[in-house]
Amino acid sequence: MTDLARFLNPRSIAIIGAAPDPTKIRGAIQHMVISNNYSGSVYPVNPSHRVINGVPCHAKITEIDAVIDLAVVVLPARLVPESLESCAAAGVPNAIIISSGFAEEGNTGLQDRIAGIAARTGMRICGPNAEGFYNALDGVAVTFSPTVAPASGPQLPIMAGKPIGVVAQSGGMGFALYHRGRALALPFSHIISTGNEVHLTAADFFAHLVDDERTGVILLFLESIRDPARFRAAAARAQAIGKPVIAVKMGRSEAGIRATASHTASMAGWHTAYRTAFRHYGILEATDPDEAVAMAAALATAPRAAGTRVAVVTLSGGAGAWAADALAAAGLQLPELPADLQADIATLLPSYGTARNPVDVTAQAVRDGGLYQSIEKLLASDAVDQVFAVLSLASETRTSLSADELRALAAYRKPLLNYTYALPSRLAIETFAGAGAVVFAGLREAAAAAAALAAPTRPPVPIAPAGAPLLPAISGALSEAESRELLAANGIALPPARLVTRAEDLAAAAAELGYPLAMKAQSRALPHKTEAGGVVLGLRDAAGVRDAWQRIHAAVAAHAPDVVLQGVLLCPMAEDGVEMIIGGLFDPVFGAMLSVGAGGTATELYQDVAWRLAPLDGDAALAMLRELRCFRLLDGFRGAPRGDLAALAELLVRVAALLHGAGGRIAEIELNPVRVHPRGASVLDALAVLR
Amino acid sequence: MTDLARFLNPRSIAIIGAAPDPTKIRGAIQHMVISNNYSGSVYPVNPSHRVINGVPCHAKITEIDAVIDLAVVVLPARLVPESLESCAAAGVPNAIIISSGFAEEGNTGLQDRIAGIAARTGMRICGPNAEGFYNALDGVAVTFSPTVAPASGPQLPIMAGKPIGVVAQSGGMGFALYHRGRALALPFSHIISTGNEVHLTAADFFAHLVDDERTGVILLFLESIRDPARFRAAAARAQAIGKPVIAVKMGRSEAGIRATASHTASMAGWHTAYRTAFRHYGILEATDPDEAVAMAAALATAPRAAGTRVAVVTLSGGAGAWAADALAAAGLQLPELPADLQADIATLLPSYGTARNPVDVTAQAVRDGGLYQSIEKLLASDAVDQVFAVLSLASETRTSLSADELRALAAYRKPLLNYTYALPSRLAIETFAGAGAVVFAGLREAAAAAAALAAPTRPPVPIAPAGAPLLPAISGALSEAESRELLAANGIALPPARLVTRAEDLAAAAAELGYPLAMKAQSRALPHKTEAGGVVLGLRDAAGVRDAWQRIHAAVAAHAPDVVLQGVLLCPMAEDGVEMIIGGLFDPVFGAMLSVGAGGTATELYQDVAWRLAPLDGDAALAMLRELRCFRLLDGFRGAPRGDLAALAELLVRVAALLHGAGGRIAEIELNPVRVHPRGASVLDALAVLR
Repeated sequence: MTDLARFLNPRSIAIIGAAPDPTKIRGAIQHMVISNNYSGSVYPVNPSHRVINGVPCHAKITEIDAVIDLAVVVLPARLVPESLESCAAAGVPNAIIISSGFAEEGNTGLQDRIAGIAARTGMRICGPNAEGFYNALDGVAVTFSPTVAPASGPQLPIMAGKPIGVVAQSGGMGFALYHRGRALALPFSHIISTGNEVHLTAADFFAHLVDDERTGVILLFLESIRDPARFRAAAARAQAIGKPVIAVKMGRSEAGIRATASHTASMAGWHTAYRTAFRHYGILEATDPDEAVAMAAALATAPRAAGTRVAVVTLSGGAGAWAADALAAAGLQLPELPADLQADIATLLPSYGTARNPVDVTAQAVRDGGLYQSIEKLLASDAVDQVFAVLSLASETRTSLSADELRALAAYRKPLLNYTYALPSRLAIETFAGAGAVVFAGLREAAAAAAALAAPTRPPVPIAPAGAPLLPAISGALSEAESRELLAANGIALPPARLVTRAEDLAAAAAELGYPLAMKAQSRALPHKTEAGGVVLGLRDAAGVRDAWQRIHAAVAAHAPDVVLQGVLLCPMAEDGVEMIIGGLFDPVFGAMLSVGAGGTATELYQDVAWRLAPLDGDAALAMLRELRCFRLLDGFRGAPRGDLAALAELLVRVAALLHGAGGRIAEIELNPVRVHPRGASVLDALAVLR
Repeated sequence: MTDLARFLNPRSIAIIGAAPDPTKIRGAIQHMVISNNYSGSVYPVNPSHRVINGVPCHAKITEIDAVIDLAVVVLPARLVPESLESCAAAGVPNAIIISSGFAEEGNTGLQDRIAGIAARTGMRICGPNAEGFYNALDGVAVTFSPTVAPASGPQLPIMAGKPIGVVAQSGGMGFALYHRGRALALPFSHIISTGNEVHLTAADFFAHLVDDERTGVILLFLESIRDPARFRAAAARAQAIGKPVIAVKMGRSEAGIRATASHTASMAGWHTAYRTAFRHYGILEATDPDEAVAMAAALATAPRAAGTRVAVVTLSGGAGAWAADALAAAGLQLPELPADLQADIATLLPSYGTARNPVDVTAQAVRDGGLYQSIEKLLASDAVDQVFAVLSLASETRTSLSADELRALAAYRKPLLNYTYALPSRLAIETFAGAGAVVFAGLREAAAAAAALAAPTRPPVPIAPAGAPLLPAISGALSEAESRELLAANGIALPPARLVTRAEDLAAAAAELGYPLAMKAQSRALPHKTEAGGVVLGLRDAAGVRDAWQRIHAAVAAHAPDVVLQGVLLCPMAEDGVEMIIGGLFDPVFGAMLSVGAGGTATELYQDVAWRLAPLDGDAALAMLRELRCFRLLDGFRGAPRGDLAALAELLVRVAALLHGAGGRIAEIELNPVRVHPRGASVLDALAVLR
C-alpha cells in the first residue's frame, strides 16, 4: 500500500472540531462517515463536548489512546496550524483540512504555516478549503458533500464496469460529477477534492489512481496544475498502461480565468498549453459536466473502438438523422454500409426501413426482433467500429432491448452505445445497468462518449534526448543575425547571409552573395524591423544596396532614435514557396512547446496553428502539418507544385529538439517566414528570446 | 377560427381502421383520445367490429349519422385512397393519415392519389406516415405516441409561462421534445407531426401557430421545407409580432442528409441556406434536442434580455468557472462588475466570497440570504442584462431559493436562469416550477438558453423593391465581358476595359486604356480562364500585348481545343487593395442569397464567408463584412490603410438587389476578385450564370 492508499482508506479517523449538528459543515463530517457505514474507528475531537451523537468525544487529539490514520480538521482557519502541530505530536500521518479562510481569501501567511508543518513533520496534508473525499469501494466518506448521503428512497444498483476515480480541485464539481454518474448507475472508486493544495496536489492523487488497480477510469477536474513534473509523470504512466483519463480544465474564457484565479487560490494557465499536453498524453478533454460524465460512462462500461466508423441504428428516422449529425460533429465517420451488409439487414426490416447508415429499423423492429438482430450483424461486421443505437426508452413496462440481449451483444467486444430520445424510465436505466450498459439521455454527450471510445490510444514514440544545445550566455531578445547564429550552431541550416557593419563593406558582401538581395536592419532592440522601415527587398545592384543602407538608417533613426544598429543583414532573395511560421516557447507547466502555422495574415486571422509538446519525431511533425487547414497549400493547392514536406518536418523536429534541450533558456523562438519550396525549405527570418 | 383551428380542435373524430388492442398503433389512437379525456365524440370505423372498447363502431364512415370534424386513417396504405374518398363523400373536412407505406418507401403513385383527392375535394389532409398531434390546451390526443399517455404516477404540475407549440416533420422527435419538456414542467400548446406532407405542410401548421394567441413559443423540427413561400411568410409574421421561433434542422452532415433523404421522403436542403434564412427571420437554431428544449424553456418562462451581458452567481467556485466558460462559448459577455456593485455585493458575502463575475457567494450564502440578495442587486443593476445562477438543487428537503423569492426576483423583468450542477431533486423542479422558473440541469444547454434570450429581436429593415433588372435573353454561363455588361447595365460600375476580337485592334485599344494592362481570354465555355493559360498580367507595351494575344490563343487552344474565343478583354492593371470575393445564388427554398468573403485562398481554406438573404441595405451589408474574420484586413490591418467599406457595402447592396430582382434568372454570380482600395472598390473579374 502506498502512502495515499492509507490516507484514502484509514483504519481510524479523528475529526477535529466535530460538532453535533449534521446540517452544519462541522457536524456533517461525522454524520457522513458513520451513515456510510465506515468500518474503522471514529474519534470526534472538541473540548466542548464529551459525546457527539453517541460517539465519545476527546478534548485534544493527543488524548486519544489509539493510532489515528487520518485527522480531519474543521476548525476555524486561525486554529488550524496549532491543531496540525498537535496531530504531528500525536503521530498522525495524514490530515485533511476542510476549513476555508486561507490563500483563497488572501491569508497566504496562514497557509504558508501549514506548508511549513507539512515540510517539517512529513505529515501528508490535503487542503485547506477542501470538500474531503469519498472512497466508494471501502465505504469511507470523509466529506460534507450531501451527494454521498445514503438516500432514503430505493437505490439504483451500481453496474459492473471499471470504477471511475475522480480528482477535483473544486470539491463541489467533483461531487456533482459523482452525483450525475450515480444517476446512471455508474461504478466509482474515489471522489477526491484537493482544495488549495498546500501539500498534496491533484497530481499526487492522480498518480495514486493511475496505479490503483481498482480504478479503471480517471476523471480530473482541474483549475491549475501546481506540480507539473508529477502530473506529467502520472499522465505518461496512465498512457503507458492504457488507463483512460478524462480531464476538464477551467479557465478557457476570460471570465473563467477570472473565476479560477479567485477560487481555491489557483492561477489558470494558458489553455492551449493544457490542450496540447492533454493530447500529448492521450488525455481526453471534456468541455462540460455532462460530457465528462458521458465520456467516463462509456470508458467505464464499453471497450475502446478500433476506429472511427460508427453505424447508427434507430427506431425513429428523425432521431437517427439528428444522431448522425451529432456523431459527425464529434468527428466520427458514418460510412454508407457495404451492399451485402445492407442487403442482409434489409431482410430483418419492414419495407419502410432502410439499411444504409443510419439503419432505420423502425419502431416495428422492437417487436419482431429486427432491432437486436440488426445490431448483432453490425457488431459482427468488419465495416463498423462501433454501433450507436437510437432508442426510445421511456416505458416503465418494457425496454427496446432486454438485459439478456444486451449481455449477448456485449460478447462482441465492440462498443454499443445506447441513446434514448425520449427521457429514460427507471426500468430502462436499471435493466441496462443490470447488463453493464449505460442509457445515454443527452445526444451531444453521447456523441462525445462515442468519440472518446474511438480516440487513438497509441502512446507517443519515445524520442532519444538530444545533446545540450549551444546557446550564447546572454538573455533577452536576440537580433536576427544572432538568432541565425543560434540556429546554425544547433544544426539548423539557413540560407547564406552577411552581417555588414560598415557601409564600405557593402559592395564586397553584395557581390559575394549575388543579386537580387534583401537588406534588414539588425538590433536586439528592433524585433519588428519591418514596421520600423528596417527592411528593403529586391535590391538589384550596388547603387540600390548603398541607397538601401541610407534609407534603413534614416528610417530606424526616425522610428526608434535610441536604437543603435549592429549593422544590416544582406541576404539573397529566396525562391518562391509557401510561407509558414514556426514558433516555440517554454511553458511554465508543460515545458517546451512547438507551433506551426500559415505565414502571412492567416495565422493571426484564422488561428490556424498546430501545437505539440517538444521534442517530437518526423511522423509527429508531419501529423502536425496535416492538421492545419492550410496544409492544402503545401500539398499542391490549385495545381501549384507540392512543398517539400519532409524538409519542413525536419525543420520542426530540429527546432523542437533545440527548444527542449535548452530547458527553458529559450523563452520564445519564431522562424517567420519559413518558405517551403518544391525542394527544401528556407528560414528567411528568425527571432529568439533567451533567459 | 381558421381552418386548422378546427383540424386541431375537432368536435368529433372518426378513427378509420380502429382496433381494440391499445398496444398496436391501430388500437392506440382511440385509447389515447379517450384516456386524455377528449370532450368531443369518438367514432371508431371498422367493418369487423360492432363495438371497440365500449364505443359503438361503424362499418363505414358514411354510415355515421353525425358531423365528423376529423377523420384519422390507420388502414393499410393500399386502402387509404378509397377511405379518403368515403370521407370526402361524407363531407369530412379534415383527415390525418397515420398509415405508412407511401413515398417514404417508394410508393409515390399511391401518395399522388392522395394529393389528387386533397386537390379535388378540398379536404385538408395531414400525413401520410404521420404520428398525429396532441392539442394539450384542449385535450385532443390524436396520436399513438406513448409520451402523451396519462402517467400512472404523480404528475408534475405544468408551470405558468408561454405555451410551446411544436411542429415536427419527425413525429418521434416532436413527441420526444414534448416528453423532455414535460419533465421540466414546461407548458405546451400543441405537438404536431406532419409526416410526408402530401397536402398540409409544416409551414401550414407553423403559420397557424404564429397566429394562435395561446401559443407563445414555436419549436420547429425540420427535415426539409416543401412550401418555401408559406414558410417565409409565417417566419416574417412571427418576427413582426415578436413570437420566438426555435428551429432544428436535420441534415447538417453527409450521413444526416442521407438519413433525411430516406426518411419521410424529403430532401434535405443546403444547410447554409437554412442557417442564413433562420438568421434573417430571427429564428433561433438549436443543434440538439436538449438545446432545443432548453431554449424553448427559457423563452417560455423568462423575458428577453436587453443585451448580452451576463452575471454569474454561484455557490461553487469551480462550477461558476465552468459556467463562465460555457456562457462565453455561447457568445455571451461576462464583464467584470462595476466597483460599486462589487462593493455592495461584497457586504453580503462571507470573507472568502468574491463579487467580480462570476460572483461566488459560496454555499454559506444560501443560509444567510446572501444568494437571494446578490441576485436581486444584479437584476437591479444596469450593468447586467441577465443573471445566471449556478446552484446545487439536489436536496429533497430544501432549495437554494424559495418559490416566494423566485417570484420576487421575477418582478425585475430581467432574465434569471437557474442551473444546478448536482442533478435536481423533484422538490427543486416543483418548487421552481411553482414560481414559473425552470431548473436547468445541463450546462451547455443552459448557456444556449441564456444566449437565446439575448439574441437580437429587431426585425430586418424593409427594403424598397428595385425595378426588374436588365438581363440578356440567353442562359448558361456568360463570358467575363458579358458578365461585365450585365453588371454595368444594372448600375454596377466596373473599371474600364475593352473587348478586342481582332489582333489588329489591339494597339488602339491598348493606347486608349493606357499601360500597364492585363489581357484575359473571353468565352462562355471558359469560366476558369487562369487555369487554361488565358490570363496575362502586367503588359507594359504594344509588343507585350501582341505577344500576349498569341500566347493566350495558343494556351487556350492547347487546353481546350473546342473553345472558340470571343476575343480578349484588355483592362488596366488595378491599383492595390484588399481582395474580396462577392458571390450570389438563387436557392430553391429561400431565393436570392448573397455572400462575401476574403479573396485568394482564405475563402476556400477557412470558409470565412458571410451569407445573407437578398435584398439587403447598407447597414446589413456592413454587418455582413464585420462578421468576417478577415474584416481586420479591411480595417487597417498592421498599419495598412483602411479599405473603403462604404464602397464595398454599396457593391453588396447592388449585387443583392440585382440577384433578388432577377427572381431566379441569375442562378449564380461571382465577382472575384473585388479589390477594395482606400477610396473605392474595383470589380476585377465577374462571372454570371443565367437560366
